[in-house]
Order: sequence, then structure tokens, then C-alpha cells
Amino acid sequence: MILVNLKCYPEGIGRGGLKLARDAERASRETGVCLGVAPQYVDIRLIAEQVRVPVFAQHVDPVLADKNTGAVLPESVYDAGAVGTLVNHSERRLELAAIDECIRRARQVRLTSLVCTSSPEISQAAAALRPDLIAYEPPELIGTGVSVSKARPEAVTDALNLVRETAPGLPVLCGAGITTAEDVRVALKLGTKGVLLASGVVKAKDPYGLLLEMARACT
Amino acid sequence: MILVNLKCYPEGIGRGGLKLARDAERASRETGVCLGVAPQYVDIRLIAEQVRVPVFAQHVDPVLADKNTGAVLPESVYDAGAVGTLVNHSERRLELAAIDECIRRARQVRLTSLVCTSSPEISQAAAALRPDLIAYEPPELIGTGVSVSKARPEAVTDALNLVRETAPGLPVLCGAGITTAEDVRVALKLGTKGVLLASGVVKAKDPYGLLLEMARACT
Amino acid sequence: MILVNLKCYPEGIGRGGLKLARDAERASRETGVCLGVAPQYVDIRLIAEQVRVPVFAQHVDPVLADKNTGAVLPESVYDAGAVGTLVNHSERRLELAAIDECIRRARQVRLTSLVCTSSPEISQAAAALRPDLIAYEPPELIGTGVSVSKARPEAVTDALNLVRETAPGLPVLCGAGITTAEDVRVALKLGTKGVLLASGVVKAKDPYGLLLEMARACT
Amino acid sequence: MILVNLKCYPEGIGRGGLKLARDAERASRETGVCLGVAPQYVDIRLIAEQVRVPVFAQHVDPVLADKNTGAVLPESVYDAGAVGTLVNHSERRLELAAIDECIRRARQVRLTSLVCTSSPEISQAAAALRPDLIAYEPPELIGTGVSVSKARPEAVTDALNLVRETAPGLPVLCGAGITTAEDVRVALKLGTKGVLLASGVVKAKDPYGLLLEMARACT
Repeated sequence: MILVNLKCYPEGIGRGGLKLARDAERASRETGVCLGVAPQYVDIRLIAEQVRVPVFAQHVDPVLADKNTGAVLPESVYDAGAVGTLVNHSERRLELAAIDECIRRARQVRLTSLVCTSSPEISQAAAALRPDLIAYEPPELIGTGVSVSKARPEAVTDALNLVRETAPGLPVLCGAGITTAEDVRVALKLGTKGVLLASGVVKAKDPYGLLLEMARACT
Repeated sequence: MILVNLKCYPEGIGRGGLKLARDAERASRETGVCLGVAPQYVDIRLIAEQVRVPVFAQHVDPVLADKNTGAVLPESVYDAGAVGTLVNHSERRLELAAIDECIRRARQVRLTSLVCTSSPEISQAAAALRPDLIAYEPPELIGTGVSVSKARPEAVTDALNLVRETAPGLPVLCGAGITTAEDVRVALKLGTKGVLLASGVVKAKDPYGLLLEMARACT
Repeated sequence: MILVNLKCYPEGIGRGGLKLARDAERASRETGVCLGVAPQYVDIRLIAEQVRVPVFAQHVDPVLADKNTGAVLPESVYDAGAVGTLVNHSERRLELAAIDECIRRARQVRLTSLVCTSSPEISQAAAALRPDLIAYEPPELIGTGVSVSKARPEAVTDALNLVRETAPGLPVLCGAGITTAEDVRVALKLGTKGVLLASGVVKAKDPYGLLLEMARACT
Repeated sequence: MILVNLKCYPEGIGRGGLKLARDAERASRETGVCLGVAPQYVDIRLIAEQVRVPVFAQHVDPVLADKNTGAVLPESVYDAGAVGTLVNHSERRLELAAIDECIRRARQVRLTSLVCTSSPEISQAAAALRPDLIAYEPPELIGTGVSVSKARPEAVTDALNLVRETAPGLPVLCGAGITTAEDVRVALKLGTKGVLLASGVVKAKDPYGLLLEMARACT
């Protein structure tokens, strides 16, 4: 799986996000590999209605459908067409108990929960909460173009082993600094089930071409 | 102005929010009074595209168009069709400096900023930051059905006077516990320019009928 | 081990805290059981200098000795005579990565880290970060007088098993609602190494008498 | 007034903080100028008992004397001998309503509240809440050695004018980058009642000599 986090990048807003989602859809159709996007909240419905890609929220709040002005309600994210949500991204860190609550709330409304973690030990901690997916991303490499799979292969392996110890079968992605098809290939060889990436694709000259190469690296 | 905050109420999600927005639109058309809605982020575009009412975000994050995974980017909210945003709602309180940043960022992207405040003194503090609107809501009355305009008329007057002292001409709304047209009438008589309300309308049996009565109370 | 969290209770400030610490010291001397206190930050040195009990901070910030105005620096807590710190109390919840940082920083300055957890799964998550101690406290029982050891014995057992699976040998305390020596006896019988308590002792008529009974229940 | 914020600097912990407080005491005795310190919480009592200088907390939490594990209770800070507290330092920013609560709670327990602000407008906002003192510090100059009084004299004047408009007579300090007696002299000439400083003194080779010069610049 390749999940493209559009963050708050200007290239990923509105039509820009729609175009990136279409690039992902095309690359997916040509390769059979699962490619998804995590756009701004306001763009979830736009993309989910027009493009056949799995759409993730970048975050949901672990609140109930009640007051909570300003919160991102899991139900509303699901209603808009998302299939999952990031949880605890390093740019949106959550309290431990809130991660647990997010995973439960996501499950309740049938959203896939993908918990982001910043070290092998923290990956094991997240695994204890039984999310649907984990994405290990050393925060110091995020946005650098220095790929986690190449710069920290042993850390990825550690994360995989620790997660396996606590929750065998729980799929682990990796992320941070991933910009080439080769980075993806190495990530899969290490045992991950895919990658979480952002600027590498969002700010690429030819996002479609790059996604296609990355998807081919998965087959 | 009557602004309906849909919060995370189940009645206000997706089609529910769309219906409430249409109720507001109809009441507005019949009376000429400005009625708006503040839906979940994911519903902003849906409503803004299909209904002719001013749409407000319930919150924006004072961040730039860059990384910031999980943040609500002012640009994306504007792109989705919103005309404004709540800032510092009592269920989404912000640091003082962040309120200032939100007001500036909102202005930059042409969103009207409506700062919520919880006491007359805090209303004056907010006025010093020159938002476009202030809504004074005593938090202890929110959701109670006991209206601020009737239970705390002197506090509303204090808020108005203090805001006027610092920023003459800055329009002030009031909110909390407003459930009837009479509450709205009293609020206007006190000198406010309108009301911010939520459950009173969202959970009403006949939201359209109530909004119409409230709008008529404004004329 | 019996650790008395003085929280912000008025009975535990200054001289009050000193007296409670002396009660713990006396009960410890008579029974050989380890009794400690977690007072307000400003009282750590006062108690550590005058009373022979282990003193814990109620929290430390995972920051370095640099700017960080307003933070509770682990080094300063150690310098004042504390031997340990609570981490992630349910009234002071921390981000997952911050818990990890607190444990590391505490270790660095030779403070014992006691991570508080609110469910069996969250206890296992905490165990993955290898703190020195875990205290499992269902938040809904805190301050109720309904003891976790009696009301939720199976949850305590679950927590113990899950922690053991990830970190064999890591001592687990339990807390919430503990007010009698019998509660302590049951907690130990379940396999915990002690209890974390607060109002039950701090607001007791005869804290010394109660602590003595509780300590005897440990022998 | 000259207030030295010891932050989390290693030079200001324990004995280090005590020594700096004694330096301030000596400089105060020789000049008649009021010099104070804001140490780590754990050092408040140590310094207040042994040195005749006004001691400020770096922060207090706006909570009541009840549960609230990990909070800094205003009552306990007062009990330890502090005379005041910083509120909303740029390294410990608070929600607008929390600033209001801190000011009230501080007043209740007879602590002087000194609210830190980061722009002229935010200074006026803070003034609306009627604290005892305001310290205007442009965050981008903090710790730089480039003094606010010299680099931004017009911003200091703006802050003074805006505060005066809302709360005539409310004393304003300034801070950020202040490292020399000349910086202090300029700050006073602009109309401030003193300075808030930190690294400039804490990390000086001869803190006493520098404080003495600065105090003399006030006379």
C-alpha cells in the first residue's frame, strides 16, 4: 500500500488534491497496487465522490456525536466517504489514551485506523492498542528526502520485530524521506506492507510518473 | 445575523447539515435576514456548493500552507466555499496569541473571523485583536435552554460597552441557551447584531419554523 | 509499595504535606514497607530534606535544561531530592511520544518513572516503553472510594498479564478508589506490587492509622 | 523592576538559583531598585526562605485546590513564599480564558500576576483582563541578545499606548534580548517600569556585576 499524505501543502488543496488523487487512481489501475490519499478534511468528500481511491482523514478527534465544536467527528469523516484515518501523526501527536480512543471510535464507524509512530518501542506500544495499521516514521527524517528504508533499515526491522511480538499479523508501513521507487522497494524488502509519504510525491514534478514507478516497485 | 453552529451533533452531519442549511436559506429568503451555518469541516463544500447561505468553519488552525498534518488550513476552508470561521469557541479554546494568528490568517485568505468569548472582560480582550465579529457566550449557559439575553442581560450590556470602548463599531453577537424568537428579540434590543446558536435549532422539531420566527424577530 | 499522591488537595500543601510524609515515614518504620509521597512541586525539597520517605514528583516535563519557562525540569526535581516521578497520570495525560521521552529523561537523571495507565491494553502499551513501574488506574474509579482491586479484579489481572507478556518482571501497582487496608490486601493478592492512592489517605481522619493498617496489609 | 527568569537553565537550578537570587538581593540593597527572580518551582521555597528578593513562579495552573495531579496550585506557590507569578510566557502560552482565570486565582491567593505578551495588540488584550503587570516580549528576540528596547523602540511605545488606552496606570515591563545596562536604560526611557530578562543575566560571566549595573541604570 502507498498512502500519500497531502498535509497542508498548497499543491494538495481542492483541485490540486483531486488531481493527485486521480494520479494515484491511475497508477493503481495500471498496477493493481493499492494507492490512497489523505487530503484536507474539506476535500475528503470531493475526492471520495469523484475518484476511486481509498481516502484517509489526516486525523479524527476521539469525541462522540454531540457538542464538541471544532472537532473532526469520526462519523462525519465516514459519511464524507473516507475509509480510514491517520492517528497520532508526528505533526499531530495524541495522548496515549486518546490514541486508544481514536482506534476504538474509528472501528465503531468502520474507519481503518493507521497509527503513526516515531520509534521501534513506540511502534510496539501502539501495537498493544490493536490498530488496523501502523506506520513507523522517524520524525527527524520526515520531509528530508533521506529515506527511512535506506538510512535506518535496522530501525525498521526493529519496529517490525517488536510489533510482531505484541500483535502478530498487524501490518506495518514505514515512512519519512521516501522519494523514489527504490526507497519503496527497500521498504518492502525489509518486511513492511507499504509506505506513507508526502512531499516526495506532492511536490514532485510528475507525481503520476513517480507514483507509477513506486507502485511497480511493489509488484 | 443568525449563525447556527452544527457542532458534532448527529442531526447536523452530511444530509442533515444540508437540510439545516436549506432551512436557513429559506428563512433568509423570506425575511432578508442573514442566516448562516457552521457545519463539520467535511460538509463545508457540500453545503457551500448547493445552498446559498454563508458557511463558517467551526475552527481553523493558524498554520501556513506547508506540512502540519491534521490541521485545518484556512486556505482550504476558503477554497471549499466558506466565508468565515469561528475562532476560540468555548469548546475549542485557543491560546491568546493563536487567536491573534487566526484572525490574521483568516483575513489573509478573506475569511470573516468571529471570535467567541466567555465574559465581558474577555470580549474586550478579543476586541483588542480586531476580529470581524465577536460572539459573547457565557459557557455555563451553553446548551441549557436558559438564554443569555434573558438570564444575563447586564452581562451582555457590559460586553457591548467594553468592546465599544476598545473597538467602536465592531459588531457583537451573543449566544448560549438561545432557543426562541423572543430570546433573539431581546438579544437585539440589548444592542447585539445577532445570535450564535446550536442545539436550540439543530435539535428543534421544526428547525425551519423556528429559524423563520427567529429571523422575523430580527426585522 | 504504597505511594500517596497529594495532588492539589489543600490538606497536602506545605505543612500539611510534611505531616502526611511524616505519617508515611512512621508507618514505614514500624512495618518495613516502602511508603512514599508525591507532593506539590514546591514541597518536594521541604519533604525530602526533613522526612525519610521516597518523594515523587507528580509530573515532569520531557524537556532539556535550557529555556522552557514554566516547565518542570527533571534535573531540578532530582536536585530537590525526589527519587521518582509519576508520568501520564489520568489528570495529566501525555502524548505517547512524550511518555517515552519522560521515561528516558527520568532515567538520565536517576529518577524512577512510574507510568499511570487507564486500561489493561494501555498498560501493555506503556510496558513497551520500559518504565520502572506501572500503575494501572481505571479513571472512572479515581476518587470514588470504590476500589479497583475489589470492583475490577479481572481488569487488574488482565493488566498484569499483558504487561508481563511485553515486559516480564516490570512491577505493576494499581490504584483508584483505594481507601482501606483490605483494598490493599486484595491488590497484592492479585499480583500487584503495591498501590497508588490519594484522597483515601489525604482526606482520612487519621492518615497515620490508615497508612499503618495498609502497610501491615502488605506484610 | 528587574525580574530574572531562570527558566530551565542549568545555571539556575538549586544552589545556582540561590546564588543568582543572592546576586539580585545584593544589587537591590546597593541601589534600592527592586530585583526579583523566577526560579524552578522546586526552588521557590529554598530561595524565598534564604534570600530577601521577590520570588515569582514561572507559571501557575488556574485550578482549584482539589484533584488536578501535576498542576502547579497557586495556593502552594504562595505557601512556598512566592509573591507573584508569570502568566502566559511565550514558552508557556495559555488559552485566553485561562489567562483570565490565572489572574483571578493569583489575586485570590495574593500573588502578583505578570502577564507576558508578544505584540502591542496582544498587550492591549491582556490589559483588558486587568493583571497587575504586563511584560511585552517579542518572541523572535528572546534569547538573541538583540534587545527589544533598541531593536523595536516603536513597538514598545505602541504597546505602552495601547495598554494605557485600556488600563491607564497598569505598569508595563519589556523583555527579550536584554543583556546590558544600556538596554535597561533605554527601556525605562521609553516608559516601561522595568525589564524581564533571562539568559542575559543567568549565563553572564558576572551576574552580580551585570545586575548591579542594570539596577544603577534604573536610578
